[in-house]
Amino acid sequence: MSIPRLLTPGPVAVPEMVLEAIQQQPIPHRSATFEAFYGALLSRLRYLYQSQGMVCTLIGSGTYGVEITLRSLIRPESKVLVVHHGKFSQRWRDDGTRQGWQVHNLASKWGEVPEPGKVIEHAQQIDALAAIVLTHCETSTGVMLDLEEVARGIQKVHPDCLILVDGITTVGCVPFYFDDWGIDAAVCASQKALMNPAGLATVALSERAEAALLPTHHSDFANLYNYVSFARDHSYPYTAPVQLLFGLKAALDHIQEVGLPRIWNQTIQSARYFRQGIQELGGELFGAANGLSLTAFSFPGKDSDELRRQLEAASGFVLSGGQGELKGNIMRISHMGMADQAAMSAVLAAFSTYL
Amino acid sequence: MSIPRLLTPGPVAVPEMVLEAIQQQPIPHRSATFEAFYGALLSRLRYLYQSQGMVCTLIGSGTYGVEITLRSLIRPESKVLVVHHGKFSQRWRDDGTRQGWQVHNLASKWGEVPEPGKVIEHAQQIDALAAIVLTHCETSTGVMLDLEEVARGIQKVHPDCLILVDGITTVGCVPFYFDDWGIDAAVCASQKALMNPAGLATVALSERAEAALLPTHHSDFANLYNYVSFARDHSYPYTAPVQLLFGLKAALDHIQEVGLPRIWNQTIQSARYFRQGIQELGGELFGAANGLSLTAFSFPGKDSDELRRQLEAASGFVLSGGQGELKGNIMRISHMGMADQAAMSAVLAAFSTYL
Repeated sequence: MSIPRLLTPGPVAVPEMVLEAIQQQPIPHRSATFEAFYGALLSRLRYLYQSQGMVCTLIGSGTYGVEITLRSLIRPESKVLVVHHGKFSQRWRDDGTRQGWQVHNLASKWGEVPEPGKVIEHAQQIDALAAIVLTHCETSTGVMLDLEEVARGIQKVHPDCLILVDGITTVGCVPFYFDDWGIDAAVCASQKALMNPAGLATVALSERAEAALLPTHHSDFANLYNYVSFARDHSYPYTAPVQLLFGLKAALDHIQEVGLPRIWNQTIQSARYFRQGIQELGGELFGAANGLSLTAFSFPGKDSDELRRQLEAASGFVLSGGQGELKGNIMRISHMGMADQAAMSAVLAAFSTYL
Repeated sequence: MSIPRLLTPGPVAVPEMVLEAIQQQPIPHRSATFEAFYGALLSRLRYLYQSQGMVCTLIGSGTYGVEITLRSLIRPESKVLVVHHGKFSQRWRDDGTRQGWQVHNLASKWGEVPEPGKVIEHAQQIDALAAIVLTHCETSTGVMLDLEEVARGIQKVHPDCLILVDGITTVGCVPFYFDDWGIDAAVCASQKALMNPAGLATVALSERAEAALLPTHHSDFANLYNYVSFARDHSYPYTAPVQLLFGLKAALDHIQEVGLPRIWNQTIQSARYFRQGIQELGGELFGAANGLSLTAFSFPGKDSDELRRQLEAASGFVLSGGQGELKGNIMRISHMGMADQAAMSAVLAAFSTYL
């Protein structure tokens, strides 16, 4: 794959194989052809999540995917622990409050992330905890939670607690074992590790999560139920975004062919290589900097937004800036999809010419 | 443009120019580049609707577009007249009932559609009518309402009544004058006259409809408010489906270049030609058959689903069957996008070989 210019941690650059797949003529979504196609896609999606259970896709952004998953699985007034430490995890807290959950907070400063022991301890103090909402990697800061440790700990202290995960910048980037870790729901989005245009979210559900979905009418767009019940028959509740699904399947085929171990390692090596290089150039990593799918960094005493503009003007590489309270203070670069070590090398070379 | 094989009245075949546009690499959706692009798209969309006012796009199906537009503009307990005569218009009635509107019904048999005078008379008998919901062309039956006459009549008897239109199979196919007819909201979908993959809906709003939107939080996906307020700045409330928007813009550019008069006439001529030809072959048009964007028809004494299978096997042409109560009884063919007179000629030739 060639070196992409777009290196934002979503949307990511889209490879040729995906663009070619999207170019196919649509097939009618109420047809045996569609069902065979979608069934194959869902089977690939199970591999991505390392799950044997229910998976489906939704039309919408990652935010939409996470929020309707949470709303479908958490009843109003339930006790929910939200672990938050950045723009996206705070959004799940805010939406939960609006939905009438009894929200318990475990807040960390942006750039930090709690130790698993602290999460378990906090959870243990809440009686009848119905669900915990975890953001595996916080895209606004680049920090990652030790999801496996947290999940295994929660299962010990609250066996009935649903473990609900924003996996938007981790599923398909770094090791993620949905079934083995005992996750109940994990959401991902097409424009991240799946190297696709934005517009689709994906969801995996455990058996007990699937059973917890309450039937709702056809036009309840803020609910997973219809998506899941149609997915059982490899079908779609609304007009299916067929071409986007073609693109998604092409990426899933590629990931299955190359194999997750190699994909995961590519993310890790891209992150390691970039972090070493950028520090050698005088850069500073932001916060815990333990996430692998993206790196947040800055150059002390220099304006991050100005540096990004210079980089783009000089070399065409597009990075993201900071969000929310970090606006202007950091840059963020992706290690997902085509943003491999070779791409990082080219960015470091570009930075080195004018720093 | 070549002759497409996919002739369902949505999704329609996607032309090369759209597929090429979708192939471009994404641009970050929080950028001046995106805003310039989206601003240009919205200006083209105004041309499509023949409106000077607010237009925007949403991620989702046409059903999603219509339902969230109606829900955003109609308050619970308002009196609403729903004119229904098929699967989709009945869906708007059902959703309105769920939303708690005081739904008044003007029902016609599937395949029929009321005269404008009857609609006005019915509306006149309702005090303080807040809104009327009209389905311009009912995709399940192929019949079309005289929208201009109805809209002008309603304005006389209920000047404050919002006129809300499902324009999914008419906007961009047949004459549609949003401003001149005094429409308050009209919804269209990408996989119809816009010749794009499914996944986007478009909405036009009058000034008073725009003013009637109530602010809501960022994560209220069942509401137009955020889409509209971001569209004012040529921006998107969620991760924008950038490639789908690229495709939409390519179609809108084409439509502006060719000009609506020619596009509209192509639909009309395709419908006229096909209807004459299919009747010459012994076919029978279904119901009022006054819609132009699609034709519903059958061959007396023959199984429509079986005929469709034969047609597809013999020639590759894919038509739709009947929906709901019409399942098995009719076939439906599109006159939108690439389904022009030449395509109709090829389908008629294919039918003639085995009828």
